[in-house]
Amino acid sequence: MGAIGIVGGVGPSAGTDLASKVFKHTRAEKDQDHIDLYLTSCPSIIPDRTGFLLEGGDDPAPGITACLEKLALCGATAAGIGCNTAHSPEILKSVKIPGGMTFLNMIEETCREVALLSEEDRKTKIGLLGTLGTIRTGIYQQYFDNYPDLELIVPQGDICEAVHDCIYNKKYGIKALSGVSKKADSVIRNAVDWLADRGCRAVILGCTELPLVFEGEDTYHGVILSDPTDILAKALIRATAPEKLI
Amino acid sequence: MGAIGIVGGVGPSAGTDLASKVFKHTRAEKDQDHIDLYLTSCPSIIPDRTGFLLEGGDDPAPGITACLEKLALCGATAAGIGCNTAHSPEILKSVKIPGGMTFLNMIEETCREVALLSEEDRKTKIGLLGTLGTIRTGIYQQYFDNYPDLELIVPQGDICEAVHDCIYNKKYGIKALSGVSKKADSVIRNAVDWLADRGCRAVILGCTELPLVFEGEDTYHGVILSDPTDILAKALIRATAPEKLI
Repeated sequence: MGAIGIVGGVGPSAGTDLASKVFKHTRAEKDQDHIDLYLTSCPSIIPDRTGFLLEGGDDPAPGITACLEKLALCGATAAGIGCNTAHSPEILKSVKIPGGMTFLNMIEETCREVALLSEEDRKTKIGLLGTLGTIRTGIYQQYFDNYPDLELIVPQGDICEAVHDCIYNKKYGIKALSGVSKKADSVIRNAVDWLADRGCRAVILGCTELPLVFEGEDTYHGVILSDPTDILAKALIRATAPEKLI
Repeated sequence: MGAIGIVGGVGPSAGTDLASKVFKHTRAEKDQDHIDLYLTSCPSIIPDRTGFLLEGGDDPAPGITACLEKLALCGATAAGIGCNTAHSPEILKSVKIPGGMTFLNMIEETCREVALLSEEDRKTKIGLLGTLGTIRTGIYQQYFDNYPDLELIVPQGDICEAVHDCIYNKKYGIKALSGVSKKADSVIRNAVDWLADRGCRAVILGCTELPLVFEGEDTYHGVILSDPTDILAKALIRATAPEKLI
């Protein structure tokens, strides 16, 4: 049986969120049934991803590589990062994967999962919500380019900014409250409705805060809700102890 | 600045709970302000603690030592374990702390914190709630023996078993529900009242599930609620980047 590695710290809570989702999807009646897992949370060596992509800041790739090496040293055989922006091809191209370790790409895993919804006779529309960083850097679009049967729909202008605000606003934002305000709940559900009205079969909740709005819900108004962290957690189990996946 | 190490996996959620409490108590406006942290979650090599203490099972000490070595290899300078039972002196006596690493003992830190409540002219009563494993192995009493000003009060018989049941029961237990049922809430609050009636100034919530009952509450009916995981999280920050402690 292999062991799971998580590059956390980007941000810190996204790392523990990914670990918790691994535990949740593991068939375990007692502690000892769980898969061995290692987490590095080293924000000191991983500069801001959006800052690098949009503002010429330092490259986070060397720090991510250093974390993967530490995880390999511990014994991790399959690793992932629970941060959407870190998956920009411009960052990942310089990340070195240690020998003997499988790196699971969260966005590729998400694309593969939503591609299962593909219809035969037309493009399948998939919506995306996320921070302005994730949207403006076009990360998901770069991965969707490999899936000609899928069309990525991203809310523009006001809706996009309102969703970002619901994550970051110091008064009613999910990060500040460590919870979901009524305002954030309503803005984000309206954004899913906007995507549903445009024919999306699924909406990718492309920021670790967004799944908190829909806890316990797999769909909203008939649209499938895809949580990339959840998808990556399941992929990590599949890569290390597939018989334990629930 | 040092880095934090967490021996998790005992159980898995207790490890991420401790990490989350470190993040919560860190003064940070952005990801990069957080302290570097490493977590090992290796239940495969750490046998059940209560099983070792009460039923002649395998010793968890070698596995804990192996995890501390991995954490030291990553760069951790101060480490702790978010599991009450693992702190039994019978287990810790065989755990080897790697050179250059400080081991913070969660129960010692908790004793030191509640000892601040000591009154001059009489013994200060401190209550304890926990699983039957924590209570029957007498772990807290062994540490309290070093604090002659403190008297540890532990509910006996029915109350003790009812609290254990609220943690482990497959229908209404906190572990099974990943949340607090009405029944668990009422039984555990009644147990705190029982300790308050016996003159306890503080109650130690000596199991990682119990603080979930009192989220956002520092006291209940005038009794101070002490969460050992929270106390250990703050001690880990103090040992690595004290200026960041909030």
